[in-house]
Amino acid sequence: MSAKATELRRRLAELTDLRNTAQLLQWDQQTMMPPKGAALRADELATLNRILHERFVSAETGRLLEAAGDELNGASPESDEARLVSVVMRRWEKARRVPSDLAADLARAASIGQEAWVGARSRSDFASFLPHLKHNIALKHRYVECFEGFDSAYDVLLDDYEPGLRSAEVTTLFAELKTELVPLIGAIAARSDAVDDSCLHGAFPLEHQRQLVADVVHRMGFEDAGWRLDDTVHPFATGLGSGDVRITTRWDETFLPMGLFGAMHECGHGLYEAGIAPELQRTPLGSGDALGLHESQSRMWENMIGRGRPFADYLAPRISELFGGSVSDLDPETFYRAVNRVHPTFIRVEADEATYSLHVILRFELEQDLINDRIDVEDLPAVWNERFRSYFGLEVPDDAMGVLQDVHWAAGLIGYFPTYAIGNLVAGQLWERVRADLPDLDAMASAGDLLPLREWLREHVHRHGSKWGAGEVLERVTGHGIAVAPFLSYLKAKLTDVYGAFGP
Amino acid sequence: MSAKATELRRRLAELTDLRNTAQLLQWDQQTMMPPKGAALRADELATLNRILHERFVSAETGRLLEAAGDELNGASPESDEARLVSVVMRRWEKARRVPSDLAADLARAASIGQEAWVGARSRSDFASFLPHLKHNIALKHRYVECFEGFDSAYDVLLDDYEPGLRSAEVTTLFAELKTELVPLIGAIAARSDAVDDSCLHGAFPLEHQRQLVADVVHRMGFEDAGWRLDDTVHPFATGLGSGDVRITTRWDETFLPMGLFGAMHECGHGLYEAGIAPELQRTPLGSGDALGLHESQSRMWENMIGRGRPFADYLAPRISELFGGSVSDLDPETFYRAVNRVHPTFIRVEADEATYSLHVILRFELEQDLINDRIDVEDLPAVWNERFRSYFGLEVPDDAMGVLQDVHWAAGLIGYFPTYAIGNLVAGQLWERVRADLPDLDAMASAGDLLPLREWLREHVHRHGSKWGAGEVLERVTGHGIAVAPFLSYLKAKLTDVYGAFGP
Repeated sequence: MSAKATELRRRLAELTDLRNTAQLLQWDQQTMMPPKGAALRADELATLNRILHERFVSAETGRLLEAAGDELNGASPESDEARLVSVVMRRWEKARRVPSDLAADLARAASIGQEAWVGARSRSDFASFLPHLKHNIALKHRYVECFEGFDSAYDVLLDDYEPGLRSAEVTTLFAELKTELVPLIGAIAARSDAVDDSCLHGAFPLEHQRQLVADVVHRMGFEDAGWRLDDTVHPFATGLGSGDVRITTRWDETFLPMGLFGAMHECGHGLYEAGIAPELQRTPLGSGDALGLHESQSRMWENMIGRGRPFADYLAPRISELFGGSVSDLDPETFYRAVNRVHPTFIRVEADEATYSLHVILRFELEQDLINDRIDVEDLPAVWNERFRSYFGLEVPDDAMGVLQDVHWAAGLIGYFPTYAIGNLVAGQLWERVRADLPDLDAMASAGDLLPLREWLREHVHRHGSKWGAGEVLERVTGHGIAVAPFLSYLKAKLTDVYGAFGP
Repeated sequence: MSAKATELRRRLAELTDLRNTAQLLQWDQQTMMPPKGAALRADELATLNRILHERFVSAETGRLLEAAGDELNGASPESDEARLVSVVMRRWEKARRVPSDLAADLARAASIGQEAWVGARSRSDFASFLPHLKHNIALKHRYVECFEGFDSAYDVLLDDYEPGLRSAEVTTLFAELKTELVPLIGAIAARSDAVDDSCLHGAFPLEHQRQLVADVVHRMGFEDAGWRLDDTVHPFATGLGSGDVRITTRWDETFLPMGLFGAMHECGHGLYEAGIAPELQRTPLGSGDALGLHESQSRMWENMIGRGRPFADYLAPRISELFGGSVSDLDPETFYRAVNRVHPTFIRVEADEATYSLHVILRFELEQDLINDRIDVEDLPAVWNERFRSYFGLEVPDDAMGVLQDVHWAAGLIGYFPTYAIGNLVAGQLWERVRADLPDLDAMASAGDLLPLREWLREHVHRHGSKWGAGEVLERVTGHGIAVAPFLSYLKAKLTDVYGAFGP
């Protein structure tokens, strides 16, 4: 490495240390911190993000990036060094438009907003949350104003979560998705009695759920020496480098899927972080920052594996053994059909695979309306409920089941939601490719052998860290950009399997 | 507040945020972090400490301190503002002599050393720990070389843990203490059969120990909304502001005092942090940095209350109720005598009140020998064992029971140990004063009512944070500096109570 490249690496390593530290502050806030620590935690996050921002956007970082770029000496544009310079330069050009005070204010408001949300949601009290939401949106407006030359204000935000993705492209993809999903859901609703999911409801003692989940995540690749699994209100995963991966889940002692599939989902995220190549550690490429791509991993493990027919062969006998009683003789086919029951609900994170994306599309539309001042924040609950009625045919009973259900807007994450449905699409495309590459995949999943899938994903996705965004990875692996068809074809095949042939 | 004072406060608030963040990184390393996270954690701590140091020692901090000092306008030298300027100026003058690279190296070595120590202790393998210890001592030499005009190299280190305390003073105090303790321990050894502690050994299921400890620490002032209690290998307490106090303990299912008194000890530390005045939050006075004073709090709660005769009236029936079996009819007097049995052991943290200070004196002497190059690090186990034999009359069986038992040297904490025995002395002096001020103290402790003691300590010690060191607090509360007599008189009274009158 040249002297400049070495100096750049050193500087970026320090910034990565600060970023990991900020991740730990947030992880701790959501899992460990006593409530009275919230005020100072917001200060700590504000200070750390201010310093991180100041040091990143300095002219010196720019000079080092430029010099390191000049010194690449014809290295392949796909090399780590070239991608590092290119990805970081892009982020630097974006970040330096933002004042450090604003970066600090965003971090502080996100931390305070989350605490306010926890209370507001538990009381279903939108009014107490309103000032925090207004403040977060006002800050996002200030953030957007730092930029120019964009097609839509929302693009500025979306790009932070899935680099390079535009809202116009998302709108097109989601329109195609919605056009297919709505009649599909309607057709299934007509035969809602065809699937019985009573085996999922019953008495599932926490202790045994923990055993089941521990077995499953270890099979996926959870390693005690480098991972943690904790309880939380809103499950998430975080990586502080590939040797320290932390996932969380939540549990329901009367409903089995909550803990199990929540943990598989977050473990899917964790595997991405754990699988990043060691040589990218302590660089900005050493964490997965393209969230649509990240979500494709969690959704593949949760849905294609966890709710897939083959893995039911592995899960069902274990569930029988652990819980006995009403599931003492659980048939894999019964379990498979139950966990794939399509049933519109109020809560996104509890939604089935068919309706899930509709929840996301609702949020994507509302976020754009908020950012473009097409709706007043005060009116948000009413607008939410009205639109929910039109998409799902259901009356939202209270704001906790409606507009207050997700932490994202409280935490300043506006522009984040679409990456969830993008994740479904990307997962559909990668899944098609995986199945072609690993013809024995079903047999292996039946036997609980998940290692070959993890290795395939590590090779094609994880090890690259943030070298590529979702679209770029897809181009490299499948030869196409983000597309809707593979996910829809996967979904229809499964639903036909579960519900039989249906129109239209 | 003047403009300069406001600017100083803002700057110090940011530094306090960074300090709290570093505390969290360390707390997490010892309680939550998976082992494979250790390498990056060392980098994170190094980076954070480098930045903290750079920002603190900048010329701008000095200018603000000076300006704020000039603008005090005759404010009382005891006011928060005057003390803030004076305490921080003293730290600034010390810190700015130290290069930020060295500050980072010290933090990194401490983090790596701790991980190496955990493995070395578990295998009783001094050889694998030796390079880390050598490196830590070499760094301390470099640190000492940053200063001039001191009486002894060790003074530079000691001053970091108990500001203003000199090794010459400690040597005098410890000589007086040792002169009294050695014959006292000898006299008791002659009647070692007089106390039966069999009630402390038996079957104490963890679940019930946790209930007992939860009750006791809540009586002391542990609040669920602002505290945590976790398990760890080496118990400690840490404060991230008064609303986020974290204590840890460890447990032995066959020996009751380990978990109970460990938790009371750390809760004593925690009460100090929780009791600091809100107006000192986010300033360098908002945590207790005089460790001798801090230790006086933990030792008072652990020993004067926890192992005191009155509180045994409260504890004994609860222990009977929770554990039954061999302690189903535990007599308070029996319990009191048992927990005050004098019995030389290898492990400092398990030592009784009479022998405890001897363990500290041994380490104080060895640390000075190490820093002044009077012994080679390679020879440390042999020197330790030889000196232990002469002080305690015991053959150290292996290094895990000897030189490897404590984390301190692994974590770069050299000069820290004496504050433990200083804590005993300070506790003795404060205890004398508390008993005069609260004549009903014994009756209240018998009934499990610990609130009045906590309030007294908050008023006289805790709320001041780091405004004063141990000696200054004692001068203000008792009219005297650190002294040996009150502790000895307290100890002798208790031992006479337990063992009967004894010579010499």
